[in-house]
Amino acid sequence: MTTQNNHRIVLASRPVGEPTAGNFRLETTPIPTPAAGQVLLRTLYLSLDPYMRGRMSDAKSYAEPVAIDAVMVGATVSRVVSSQHPDFAEGELVLAQGGWQEYAVSDGTGLFKLGQLAQPSLALGVLGMPGFTGYMGLMDIGQPKAGETVVVAAASGAVGSVVGQVAKLQGCRVVGIAGGAEKCRYVVEELGFDACIDHHAKDMAAQLAAACPAGIDVYFENVGGAVFDAVLPLLNTKARVPLCGLISQYNATEQPVGRDRLSLLMTELLKRRIRMQGFIIFNDYGPRYPEFFKVMSAWLAEGKIKFREDRVQGLAAAPAAFIGLLKGKNFGKLVVQLAD
Amino acid sequence: MTTQNNHRIVLASRPVGEPTAGNFRLETTPIPTPAAGQVLLRTLYLSLDPYMRGRMSDAKSYAEPVAIDAVMVGATVSRVVSSQHPDFAEGELVLAQGGWQEYAVSDGTGLFKLGQLAQPSLALGVLGMPGFTGYMGLMDIGQPKAGETVVVAAASGAVGSVVGQVAKLQGCRVVGIAGGAEKCRYVVEELGFDACIDHHAKDMAAQLAAACPAGIDVYFENVGGAVFDAVLPLLNTKARVPLCGLISQYNATEQPVGRDRLSLLMTELLKRRIRMQGFIIFNDYGPRYPEFFKVMSAWLAEGKIKFREDRVQGLAAAPAAFIGLLKGKNFGKLVVQLAD
Repeated sequence: MTTQNNHRIVLASRPVGEPTAGNFRLETTPIPTPAAGQVLLRTLYLSLDPYMRGRMSDAKSYAEPVAIDAVMVGATVSRVVSSQHPDFAEGELVLAQGGWQEYAVSDGTGLFKLGQLAQPSLALGVLGMPGFTGYMGLMDIGQPKAGETVVVAAASGAVGSVVGQVAKLQGCRVVGIAGGAEKCRYVVEELGFDACIDHHAKDMAAQLAAACPAGIDVYFENVGGAVFDAVLPLLNTKARVPLCGLISQYNATEQPVGRDRLSLLMTELLKRRIRMQGFIIFNDYGPRYPEFFKVMSAWLAEGKIKFREDRVQGLAAAPAAFIGLLKGKNFGKLVVQLAD
Repeated sequence: MTTQNNHRIVLASRPVGEPTAGNFRLETTPIPTPAAGQVLLRTLYLSLDPYMRGRMSDAKSYAEPVAIDAVMVGATVSRVVSSQHPDFAEGELVLAQGGWQEYAVSDGTGLFKLGQLAQPSLALGVLGMPGFTGYMGLMDIGQPKAGETVVVAAASGAVGSVVGQVAKLQGCRVVGIAGGAEKCRYVVEELGFDACIDHHAKDMAAQLAAACPAGIDVYFENVGGAVFDAVLPLLNTKARVPLCGLISQYNATEQPVGRDRLSLLMTELLKRRIRMQGFIIFNDYGPRYPEFFKVMSAWLAEGKIKFREDRVQGLAAAPAAFIGLLKGKNFGKLVVQLAD
């Protein structure tokens, strides 16, 4: 232990539009004492993910908002520091919902034992919620077939990189969309996508159309906005659109003024017989996590799936890193390291 | 035969907004002579259906538009008048794509033998494309479970009446939406829906919410527009929205001005993990038509499914009847009787 106190970050106020540093507050509290049936967890790595923006708002959503003055939620890789729970021993590594703090107490619910994972932080990325999201949404809703064209945005990110690589393993043509030349180069050269379009390009839509000469059969949606506008005209008959996120919309405070395209979208879904389906990974597929973990672990061991981690140091760095995540400033899966 | 000539209705011009009588032209032509391998068909009943509005436009869609000066497309119940085809005998009744005309020639492709159907026109309604659409979209995409709430608009119509009655057979709570008190009374009293809302009512959205105290699990979409706006807030987590038509939009010439709700719709699909899926019945489910025909025939024989036909007389009445259909003026499945 590096400290006798617990440091934690709470939600100080709800953001309007983009979150700011002032929406968060770093606090010092005593380390909690586990009761009978509980374990004390030390956070080693905290995951930062776009969905957290939703939890900062009190708009009705699929999950309860974080209360004002409550600890920000988040998945963690944690070590059992002390245990009064028969199933967990001191020193074990677990995947937990530890939140944005150094120490947390748990009654064991939802803890997933990580065993001897060579790089434990992967349980927050390629082997964790983002990888599970990409894999399951692509395979179960997207149902890619060899020779089809799969498009995914945020292609260098934690979810998109898995979607594209798994689609390549299914024999698909895979086109990514990412922010900037460096990310696009990584997506094609390292991850093996067939093409990658820079979403900053003024002619992004034309570039995407050129990269998808046979149209798009699966669009894995995690960004929305201008990217979706470019994708929609290219969707083929019987296309599938798994919908796991809309990061471009999370900071929006109101709907844009102009033509109301709600009916246009429905008309296109009808004419081209498209399936669009939202999903929330652990709500919809929770029981299949161990199955995914096994499959992905094997792919990683065989070198079939690559990944990139964007690691920042120390709890205090979390708010700025999270704000940057919503702007696409990270390059790879964003995690905060709190301890070794 | 009542005439030595064929009468037919061709597309004279493409409508802008609502079709008018001037978009159609009644022509007199010689009765065609079947060649070897062909049959000559006499139209007994012509089906009028909302999808025909789409075929009158040259906007890109799932099917080729009707060419200017070409016969309007449409399903027919027809009798084989003379046959040079080994599989068809004079006098047989078939379901055909005879179009808006008294006589048609066919090489047998796509003809479905109706046998000794007591009321042949049902092959255009409850036993035909509309019934098949309602049954398959509900069962395959909607996947209703006992105790769930199913909502369908145009509830007294050819598709909606089947959706609701089949959903009742699955043990669902069923709420219809229809135009006017008479249709609503029919939907509840004759078809056995649990409730029916008049879409002319100013407080339609509030009435719908009151009729769906447990939210909506399946919304079978065939109208769009204001009805969908009322449905969207009521859709439950994991709701399914089979999408087979958007009749309220077919005459629209442009998207309405206002807030662009395209992202709003996607956000709701995401948050509530909703599946929305367009389908075109014979493209998606064609091979299952005989299976449907058997199931629905049994239900009809057992009195489990009721239906209502709105029959007009003579080919010349077709354009006005079709224009009325798009305004909801029909009451039940709209067919034109051309001969006995």
